[in-house]
Amino acid sequence: MLDKSPYEPLNAATLTRRLGGMPELTRRLGPAAHWQVREVGDGNLNLVFIVESPKGAAVAKQALPYARCVGESWPMSLERAFFEYHALVRLGARDPGRLPEVYAFDQSQALIVMEYLAPHVILRKSLVEGVVLPELGGHLGRYLARSLFRGSDFAMDTAHRKADLALFAGNGELCGISEDLIFTDPFRASPRNRVTAGLEGDAAAARADRDLKVAAAALKRRFATSAETLLHGDFHTGSVMVTDRDSRVIDPEFAFYGPMGFDIGSLLGNLMMAFFAQSGYRADHAACIAYQDWILDVAETVWWVFAAEFARLWKSGRNGILGLRELFEDVGHEIGARSVLTDLMEEVWRDTLGFAGIEMHRRILGLAHILEFEAIANEGLRAECERRALAMGRVLMLRARTLRGPREVSALARTMAERPL
Amino acid sequence: MLDKSPYEPLNAATLTRRLGGMPELTRRLGPAAHWQVREVGDGNLNLVFIVESPKGAAVAKQALPYARCVGESWPMSLERAFFEYHALVRLGARDPGRLPEVYAFDQSQALIVMEYLAPHVILRKSLVEGVVLPELGGHLGRYLARSLFRGSDFAMDTAHRKADLALFAGNGELCGISEDLIFTDPFRASPRNRVTAGLEGDAAAARADRDLKVAAAALKRRFATSAETLLHGDFHTGSVMVTDRDSRVIDPEFAFYGPMGFDIGSLLGNLMMAFFAQSGYRADHAACIAYQDWILDVAETVWWVFAAEFARLWKSGRNGILGLRELFEDVGHEIGARSVLTDLMEEVWRDTLGFAGIEMHRRILGLAHILEFEAIANEGLRAECERRALAMGRVLMLRARTLRGPREVSALARTMAERPL
Repeated sequence: MLDKSPYEPLNAATLTRRLGGMPELTRRLGPAAHWQVREVGDGNLNLVFIVESPKGAAVAKQALPYARCVGESWPMSLERAFFEYHALVRLGARDPGRLPEVYAFDQSQALIVMEYLAPHVILRKSLVEGVVLPELGGHLGRYLARSLFRGSDFAMDTAHRKADLALFAGNGELCGISEDLIFTDPFRASPRNRVTAGLEGDAAAARADRDLKVAAAALKRRFATSAETLLHGDFHTGSVMVTDRDSRVIDPEFAFYGPMGFDIGSLLGNLMMAFFAQSGYRADHAACIAYQDWILDVAETVWWVFAAEFARLWKSGRNGILGLRELFEDVGHEIGARSVLTDLMEEVWRDTLGFAGIEMHRRILGLAHILEFEAIANEGLRAECERRALAMGRVLMLRARTLRGPREVSALARTMAERPL
Repeated sequence: MLDKSPYEPLNAATLTRRLGGMPELTRRLGPAAHWQVREVGDGNLNLVFIVESPKGAAVAKQALPYARCVGESWPMSLERAFFEYHALVRLGARDPGRLPEVYAFDQSQALIVMEYLAPHVILRKSLVEGVVLPELGGHLGRYLARSLFRGSDFAMDTAHRKADLALFAGNGELCGISEDLIFTDPFRASPRNRVTAGLEGDAAAARADRDLKVAAAALKRRFATSAETLLHGDFHTGSVMVTDRDSRVIDPEFAFYGPMGFDIGSLLGNLMMAFFAQSGYRADHAACIAYQDWILDVAETVWWVFAAEFARLWKSGRNGILGLRELFEDVGHEIGARSVLTDLMEEVWRDTLGFAGIEMHRRILGLAHILEFEAIANEGLRAECERRALAMGRVLMLRARTLRGPREVSALARTMAERPL
């Protein structure tokens, strides 16, 4: 925290004045007289500036006291910058190099200054453009295993774990937004919802679908009560920035203690939607199939790398509340520990599929839509792609127990896309 | 909070000086010159005084900075009085009249002054003496439904719920004790454990029982990660005081956000142990059977009254994060809400049986034993009763899915007691 001056939304000039007095930034970027500062559009909730100088560059992200996408009518606490800062530091330490480095945090201005990622682009854009990223699945699978394991009771002791739970319980406002927008709105008539023209009947069908709503209620309960680990909390393809060889995780302002499957499922659901969107812009059938196959390969790789890395950490790093080596390995009962891990992975897998399915509903029927579908210019075609995604999301929410692994999920996606298996 | 004087363990004289200056007490009890103050033994962690005057009476409970039962070698934070105070207030509001009324809280002395319950006795004592309490099951079942429902996301909004979660996350020290003493120690060699002579082989068998330890690990994970509601956290037959017509809940210093089944299971497990202990002191076979039948009837009543009262609150008081009337009742889908409740009750029931089973293990194989068994003078007979209880506890931990309701649990108990069904 730098000072106690009152919060004000910054512009290029006031930001330069403020950051120019911070030694941790002038050391990296040189004197502010040589900086170039520009505001760049972010999504919904923040101002984002890029600061460049002959010596280097940084990003400055300032929380706004309202949700920008809805206008000033939806006030939001500035405290979320505090939670994003703490989440960046923790998640960054759990998988070093995978999140932007934090240079400075100015709590009075709800302002985080951090590493400028270049030439990275948002993964959503890359998925629309059809770019193949050979290491994406491995990077994200490993990130998920390391962040989810190392923030959990398997790795953390009681004192640190409960203190962190208390700290992030303060992020209730953003949890409340997720609770409403993800788990409730898509399944009821809400003025915040919007759907592509032609999907009104599908939206009405979801609102009338009792089994689907019972599944949504169960998932909302998992989300609200299952404090398994510190989650990113908004881990979709818009929260990942990529180059050919690098993948970085950004924007953990929705961080909270929740179920492991929520982060994995958010990513998986977004990859599935990217899969269904492809026929909206790739007229060349063979090229479309090839890219769709790559997306499914990424989804499968995410899960398998997650599971393998989690198992590795399980063996070597189980030093927390739920470690329980004293019941198993220490007395020659390794097989018991393996059995606990197997049961855990089955539960995480079921959660993952359910949360993937609900993400696919809320991005099509709710408030916040995604670039992958929005980029389909032809509205009829977009509605068709979204309808297939909804059908798949419903199966993921209702039949999680029958899908035994990521290959079966890929097969389901191909079926729903009416592609020959 | 009254003042900032340094903490000191109080005695009758210093307590009188301190409380005599508090108007909220002199109003109830008259001037301190006419008080009679005596220290009475409590269990393990606290000093307890009874203050009596011609006008009335009160109990003063002061936390000690160590666990008394183990001596000063086990230091414990005084903050637990803070959590007990907050839990007394919340649980008392959720089921009015069921907890002692709080008169004053002196944080600097870790001191709670509250209603003196007389002529109440601890339920454990009453179960040893064979006293029938016609309303016990109804009282405790209703208390469980009201406290567990009203502290949950079904009843609480996001802001209050997350703030309370954060507050009670501070009670990590006592959660840590539970995590070790209940879920780990009974299943490993620990210098804190002790067993009745003759049970050494049973203890070794539990330590070698892989399935049992995998079940213990799963229950420990539920305990640590499933933040469903504000629990009492130590809800056994020593935390209930009774008369013929009244039942009161005391000592919620282990309060934290955890799974509903933990409080219910702790009580159920202790009732089952009281059942198995009866043949240790009731030589008259018919009298023993009759009292055992009454104990099983209490256990069944607790569950059925809990379930009925919970369903009533579910219909009328579902105004919290997980209320979701907007998906169900508000659009004519009552049956969907019933389905959510059914799924929830099945989960709570499975948790209840598992936690009951683990309670039965930790009270026989771990550090803290119970009066119901300790009161059996003949050690061989005590070991026999405890062995039957362990066998039942194992079934509860491993076969929760096969026991469809409390009558089947009673039948199992009778089988384990080798009584004709």
